Amino acid sequence: MAPRYAPSLRSRLAPLLLLLQIGFIVIYALYVEIGSNIKADGTTFSSSYPEFQDVNVMVILGFGFLGTFLVRYGYSATGFNLLVAAMATQWAVILNGMELWYYRGKIRVDLRSLVVAEMCAASALISIGALLGKTNPVHLVFIALLEVSGFVLNRWLLQTLLMVPAVNSIMLLHTFGAFFGLALTWILFRKGSLQPFEKEKFDRQAGLFSMLGSVFLWMFWPSFNSVLVDHRSPGRKLGAVCSTYLALAVSAVTAAAVSVLSSPKGKLHPIHMQSCILAGGVAVGVSMSAVHQPWEAMTIGFTAAVLSTIGSRYLKTHMLLAFECHDTRALLSTHGLPGLLGWLAHLLLQIKACDDPTVAVRFAVLHICSLLITISLSLCLGLMTGLLLKWNFWRPPQDNKCFDDQAFWEFPHLAVKK
Amino acid sequence: MAPRYAPSLRSRLAPLLLLLQIGFIVIYALYVEIGSNIKADGTTFSSSYPEFQDVNVMVILGFGFLGTFLVRYGYSATGFNLLVAAMATQWAVILNGMELWYYRGKIRVDLRSLVVAEMCAASALISIGALLGKTNPVHLVFIALLEVSGFVLNRWLLQTLLMVPAVNSIMLLHTFGAFFGLALTWILFRKGSLQPFEKEKFDRQAGLFSMLGSVFLWMFWPSFNSVLVDHRSPGRKLGAVCSTYLALAVSAVTAAAVSVLSSPKGKLHPIHMQSCILAGGVAVGVSMSAVHQPWEAMTIGFTAAVLSTIGSRYLKTHMLLAFECHDTRALLSTHGLPGLLGWLAHLLLQIKACDDPTVAVRFAVLHICSLLITISLSLCLGLMTGLLLKWNFWRPPQDNKCFDDQAFWEFPHLAVKK
Amino acid sequence: MAPRYAPSLRSRLAPLLLLLQIGFIVIYALYVEIGSNIKADGTTFSSSYPEFQDVNVMVILGFGFLGTFLVRYGYSATGFNLLVAAMATQWAVILNGMELWYYRGKIRVDLRSLVVAEMCAASALISIGALLGKTNPVHLVFIALLEVSGFVLNRWLLQTLLMVPAVNSIMLLHTFGAFFGLALTWILFRKGSLQPFEKEKFDRQAGLFSMLGSVFLWMFWPSFNSVLVDHRSPGRKLGAVCSTYLALAVSAVTAAAVSVLSSPKGKLHPIHMQSCILAGGVAVGVSMSAVHQPWEAMTIGFTAAVLSTIGSRYLKTHMLLAFECHDTRALLSTHGLPGLLGWLAHLLLQIKACDDPTVAVRFAVLHICSLLITISLSLCLGLMTGLLLKWNFWRPPQDNKCFDDQAFWEFPHLAVKK
Repeated sequence: MAPRYAPSLRSRLAPLLLLLQIGFIVIYALYVEIGSNIKADGTTFSSSYPEFQDVNVMVILGFGFLGTFLVRYGYSATGFNLLVAAMATQWAVILNGMELWYYRGKIRVDLRSLVVAEMCAASALISIGALLGKTNPVHLVFIALLEVSGFVLNRWLLQTLLMVPAVNSIMLLHTFGAFFGLALTWILFRKGSLQPFEKEKFDRQAGLFSMLGSVFLWMFWPSFNSVLVDHRSPGRKLGAVCSTYLALAVSAVTAAAVSVLSSPKGKLHPIHMQSCILAGGVAVGVSMSAVHQPWEAMTIGFTAAVLSTIGSRYLKTHMLLAFECHDTRALLSTHGLPGLLGWLAHLLLQIKACDDPTVAVRFAVLHICSLLITISLSLCLGLMTGLLLKWNFWRPPQDNKCFDDQAFWEFPHLAVKK
Repeated sequence: MAPRYAPSLRSRLAPLLLLLQIGFIVIYALYVEIGSNIKADGTTFSSSYPEFQDVNVMVILGFGFLGTFLVRYGYSATGFNLLVAAMATQWAVILNGMELWYYRGKIRVDLRSLVVAEMCAASALISIGALLGKTNPVHLVFIALLEVSGFVLNRWLLQTLLMVPAVNSIMLLHTFGAFFGLALTWILFRKGSLQPFEKEKFDRQAGLFSMLGSVFLWMFWPSFNSVLVDHRSPGRKLGAVCSTYLALAVSAVTAAAVSVLSSPKGKLHPIHMQSCILAGGVAVGVSMSAVHQPWEAMTIGFTAAVLSTIGSRYLKTHMLLAFECHDTRALLSTHGLPGLLGWLAHLLLQIKACDDPTVAVRFAVLHICSLLITISLSLCLGLMTGLLLKWNFWRPPQDNKCFDDQAFWEFPHLAVKK
Repeated sequence: MAPRYAPSLRSRLAPLLLLLQIGFIVIYALYVEIGSNIKADGTTFSSSYPEFQDVNVMVILGFGFLGTFLVRYGYSATGFNLLVAAMATQWAVILNGMELWYYRGKIRVDLRSLVVAEMCAASALISIGALLGKTNPVHLVFIALLEVSGFVLNRWLLQTLLMVPAVNSIMLLHTFGAFFGLALTWILFRKGSLQPFEKEKFDRQAGLFSMLGSVFLWMFWPSFNSVLVDHRSPGRKLGAVCSTYLALAVSAVTAAAVSVLSSPKGKLHPIHMQSCILAGGVAVGVSMSAVHQPWEAMTIGFTAAVLSTIGSRYLKTHMLLAFECHDTRALLSTHGLPGLLGWLAHLLLQIKACDDPTVAVRFAVLHICSLLITISLSLCLGLMTGLLLKWNFWRPPQDNKCFDDQAFWEFPHLAVKK
């Protein structure tokens, strides 16, 4: 069965990648330069670099290995994640620099622009989690480039129309990624997904790789939430790190408790200990600028883990059966619900902190608008992307057994034959 | 057999975790605030943060994956390690802040307090290594909270009664953790441990995860030993890093040599290359403040690796047969003996450096007292904790085959059934 | 069959390691001290330390786990890598400090000297990749010490005779390591390597460990290329990081495209996604000091990945059949060709930047000489080392099935027997 797709992969993926890559190099040659507005003492560079690397580890290793719990999809999960991240980051650097290019004629690359680009790429990597084992790499690259464009557009709209600060607008990546991914997987739904299918088979050994990815995400999430906070306000940076750390610790404990509580046999579910422990990091990241006390972060972490674990336990199957929406890596409960909760927490904390009701109402209106714009845009773009792919030159096949590692990877059994 | 424990896990673990977690959130809401005594220039934050993350990786990933060599315990090793670390760190932040709370009414959370809390949690994670595959998570959480309390008490006694510096007192975590764990596993011994049992079965594939955890501990141990040294004396920090690095390098070479030498077939033992290579880091950490020359660190690393490898080869079985003390992860030889050696090296180096014999004698007396207090306290508390668990509401069962992953984890075979 | 080698390993490896280790400790006791010329404000230490750790992760974890794709060699790949790195780094610190010792009587250990020593060790770890599964650890240690000595000699020649800057001379480690390894594997070739042999068998599960090592190398390569750039010029450091990052991103995309394009079935080859994605990092590292624009780095990354993937696809088998040179980890295409390309790019960019043709010609002559010296020295020393090992006290056996994990590692099946 596999050979059926092989020629297509060769005739489509290779030209697509080469064309895009050469195109990117040309654009970079014309418009991109390495940033030079760095402080003379080097403090900025050496302060940012470790956090940049932590985010890099999360995006490349964390997201990549998180998907290895699908036993027949380990190579694709890690390899395609790297491929998509490398493409999407290059593209995001260009898109994010458009404004600077418009005014100065040049786009700058520095640590901050790379981190922001990786975060934009992360929104696409999140969405792709819903499609694990259901698409080919050509589609994944298309989806990633479209989604990154959509996310950058969304950020630009929020920052221009609603004056949302840059850090806040980028943290909506969880919400954007989740809803984009859900819309996409809904459109690309095939009957085959309802069958007890081979590719969601869990393997204990392979699951430990997934645990590894999850643990890296858990450990470095404080860097993810604090990396964009300015180094000139170390107090806020420390606040972001400590809040995220505490929220994650609470999430881990709560996810374990709720997982056991909601299990008919009273056991822990591995997926809950891999995805739902991250819920606190997502939720606190979204509400970061309004969180000032440890208990606020911890309460957000607690609620996020409860929501996420319950969502993961009941919502996933329900969505599949009721809405024909198959969400392989449980985006809704890992990124969607905690993202919404973080948004709500931000709203409530900000209103609580406001003395002036007029300011509070104004903030609430803008805050609600920013969510509505994000959700509408992500759903619309997700639907459009899905329809484009369905109508596309390369129809998704009816049979879904062939999207595993065996279809895309050439495993050497004996490297040298006589 | 597994379903027998399932209702218990549900009715005990979930309420315990939820109760403790909500309790922690209430305490944090009342008494804990995020530290603000940070320098204005942000140097402190950005200097400490990478080392903080290294220690975080050691505690969460290193200790977690080190236990995966038990093939039927991989999920429990990594998952319960995360759960226990998340609980114990929150608890240790409160306990360590008690003194500050007494004087100022507020406990501060900052990078240093989180690192110290993680190190206190590490003492519990070490002990738990002796119980791998022999207890349930309810017990692990109890043990961790009791042990962290005991360790904080021990630190307080040493610092108050004997004026031991904070950095030195915390490095006794290896000794404390090892003796606490040994006392505990002695009390919880069951005949079943003598049988050639399934759960110590080694799996080559799973063993590579263990190698991964070990390698992370080996690489980041210099951060563990230097993180608490003040940033305002970069010379001492550099000394701590270089000494630990050299001691670890020597340990790795020596452990390999002694492992081959002591093997009847002249082969390397994987456990030696995973645990005994760390002996130098432990020993140098304990004696850090007296080590000034590279060769001192290297000699300590050499001796520690010899002791540790020989201990691991002969002592473990001997202790099991003679004292009915089953030490799953070989605590005695990984943390106990190197910890004692480090203590001895500290004593000898300090005496050698003293010109005044009165000062030397005074130091020796205090140094011996600090060890005696640590060992007595850890053994007593270990015994008490063990007895408490034995007498406890939830009796440890006679049969020891049911403490593997299968008993606690709900493995999804087919995620969606029609 | 395995027991045949066992006594040898015991009677040779253990004494060798102990002797060398004790010798190193004596040398360190006489001549080495911990560096103290550190700035008072600690900026230097805290700026360098995260990058030092990144390089440490690459050398210990990255190179170690990269070799785990050989399913029967996982323990040896990771364990022997650690052992050899620990030996070679200690040795390189001594060799690199010889000049300082000559003038001041003391060798200094600090973060920079450790990083340089690890990089010298990396040249040996690269070569060893060609011998994976074909030698015993005694040979590996010998090779590593000889090669590190050769590499330090090479650096000294380049720096003294040709005034090559220190950073440039050390980046030739890829070229040196590749040619040394190829010469060595050519000498040590045995007919057995032509047979479809068991030890190159690929295992999907084990291959994910290899992916892990590869991903760590990919992520931290910017640190590898920038760590030796002076902190007082943060602009150049930022340039090194951004250039390497972009070159790696382009390499990953290009390697995937060329892998699919050159596959008869149009599939991705796992080894290409593990080795060839790193080609850009190698090539940019070698040409770093002449790369100033993002597109230059990207073009180098693109070309390096094309060369590396095509080399890996066709050259490896060709070299085996035509030259009887079996290159297990594809050194030539991972380090050799990209290293040569980087050298060429450096030459072209430097000439392009020169206004004065005399300067350009002078640079070109020196640049060509530096390559010729490096290649000649590495080939000669590789041949000599190979001949020495062949003639050696411990003849390499004819049968090559016994160099797997089973031959060197004592796997515990049941730790405790009644």
